[in-house]
Amino acid sequence: MGGSALDATGVPLPDETLAAARDSEAVLLGAIGGYKWDNNEKHLKPETGLLQLRAGLRVFANLRPAAVLPQLVDASTLKKEVAEGVDIMVVRELTGGIYFGKPRGFETNDNGEETGFNTEVYSASEIDRIARVAFEVARKRRGKLCSVDKANVLEASMLWRRRVTALSSEFPDIELSHMYVDNASMQLVRNPKQFDTIVTNNIFGDILSDEASMITGSIGMLPSASVGESGPGLFEPIHGSAPDIAGQDKANPLATILSAAMLLRYGLGEENAAKRIEAAVTETLNQGFRTGDIYSPGTTLVGCKRMGEEVLKTV
Amino acid sequence: MGGSALDATGVPLPDETLAAARDSEAVLLGAIGGYKWDNNEKHLKPETGLLQLRAGLRVFANLRPAAVLPQLVDASTLKKEVAEGVDIMVVRELTGGIYFGKPRGFETNDNGEETGFNTEVYSASEIDRIARVAFEVARKRRGKLCSVDKANVLEASMLWRRRVTALSSEFPDIELSHMYVDNASMQLVRNPKQFDTIVTNNIFGDILSDEASMITGSIGMLPSASVGESGPGLFEPIHGSAPDIAGQDKANPLATILSAAMLLRYGLGEENAAKRIEAAVTETLNQGFRTGDIYSPGTTLVGCKRMGEEVLKTV
Ligand SMILES: CC(C)[C@H](C(=O)O)[C@@H](O)C(=O)O
Ligand SMILES: CC(C)[C@H](C(=O)O)[C@@H](O)C(=O)O
Repeated sequence: MGGSALDATGVPLPDETLAAARDSEAVLLGAIGGYKWDNNEKHLKPETGLLQLRAGLRVFANLRPAAVLPQLVDASTLKKEVAEGVDIMVVRELTGGIYFGKPRGFETNDNGEETGFNTEVYSASEIDRIARVAFEVARKRRGKLCSVDKANVLEASMLWRRRVTALSSEFPDIELSHMYVDNASMQLVRNPKQFDTIVTNNIFGDILSDEASMITGSIGMLPSASVGESGPGLFEPIHGSAPDIAGQDKANPLATILSAAMLLRYGLGEENAAKRIEAAVTETLNQGFRTGDIYSPGTTLVGCKRMGEEVLKTV
Repeated sequence: MGGSALDATGVPLPDETLAAARDSEAVLLGAIGGYKWDNNEKHLKPETGLLQLRAGLRVFANLRPAAVLPQLVDASTLKKEVAEGVDIMVVRELTGGIYFGKPRGFETNDNGEETGFNTEVYSASEIDRIARVAFEVARKRRGKLCSVDKANVLEASMLWRRRVTALSSEFPDIELSHMYVDNASMQLVRNPKQFDTIVTNNIFGDILSDEASMITGSIGMLPSASVGESGPGLFEPIHGSAPDIAGQDKANPLATILSAAMLLRYGLGEENAAKRIEAAVTETLNQGFRTGDIYSPGTTLVGCKRMGEEVLKTV
């Protein structure tokens, strides 16, 4: 899929790829995209293939952990006392909202001018099912859920807030709060430790989960899991394909390796195997190995291949 | 307007308020909103009055500076070497996009379910006029403009990117770049110094300008100016009304005072008067006076009233 599928077949997600993914027990996805296809028309962009895959697998719940590892606290641009101990899970709605809403497109308006438009839309059941996942995730964590919206302006957000609030009576053990998205993007910088689990829509989740991951200082380290009601889940690193360093053996493979651990845990129910991979990553960091993105003086700088080999040795 | 207008007249922006604002040479706005009206219906929210005022004055260009003052560099949660010298101007489109786009509202869909929906829409001329302001702002600053969008997914953003790119031929002296909004929210944390001027749509500007201002560690310090093609501009602090500390003489008045300086500069063309106010604020900080939000050990903690008096003495 993505760029390589475009080159090989002319479309970013060939039918046979989607069929093969659907037939699998779980899907591990590498980062996609690159300069070569950046100016393609929308239906021929690598990103369009990714959105089609998410929609095709109906993986509406995207779990994005952003935790500061003690070994990497110095990699954050935030002060140590602010970054230390941050452990956030962003639950992002992934198959609805403005990413998929219709109508969308280009149109000439009454003044004869070109316009571009998209629709942000959520139905009650779309909100309920993602909120339910988020309440359950919060229950397995520290029991705090913050729902992020823009309910002071947007109707889509007003419905979001209303449904999440209503559902909370089913989860009396979870402490629910609401925050406007502009405030959330500030609070993540001001005091990220105040957050446990965050639930939000597709576009706000896109923005806030990237911000949260950067706060950990190690976006090259962060995996994600996307799951639906049934069928295979989709597991991928949070980071993009980093075309600027393609082919240079510099990329950090740990986010993809940790995505495989999430695949084992959430996709196949293989908790022990997941833990072994995670422990191997921790151990490799403890041995001091670092790719460039997480390097700090006193540690051992290695390339992508070598980092993979070190994890493999340990696992 | 806002909460007090609701209490006095039943609407958040009485006609006579808008008429008086339109009749003025410039408008200085205090932060609005509070718990009391939080659960009002949309047309009875203080925020709705604010949006009506922005639309009524046609102030489509919102300039939000986020600069780290040398005296306050310790107030940032970012490491000193990351925060020091940050000086960003966010140019946010203020009267279009998803805030005002139609259709919007609530609807029952084909499954008989409730939905909430909004429309993100931009016309070519709306994009051109905000981009033009941004290019001109960048020209008076360090000559770098970063346009932020989500053109890999949204049609409204694709048109945005196309128009901004086309307009750049009129500004060959400005270095234009484009960035996806998720990446921008990361890069603001990773390395805010890479930015000079940012131009973006209404909702992305809402999120990113709050994030940028928090990076300076002194959101209580930041003014903003909203201007249109003609008529009075609207000048207001970036921060909200902070209802949690209402009546406690704790709020930082400097953002409102600095908004008055922006009013003098951009609204009335009184550059010297603007500079005198700004110099008085700097001098008051140099004398060591701080409200709680920007306090650090070794400085003098004062309340809102006292801070205002100190600035007044100096001006
Ligand atoms: C590549 C892009 C379409 C995608 C998104 O916006 O969802 C990416 O930013 C992500 O967060 O996975
Ligand atoms: C109060 C609210 C409607 C407003 C906005 O979203 O524009 C505020 O957050 C701002 O940024 O001025």
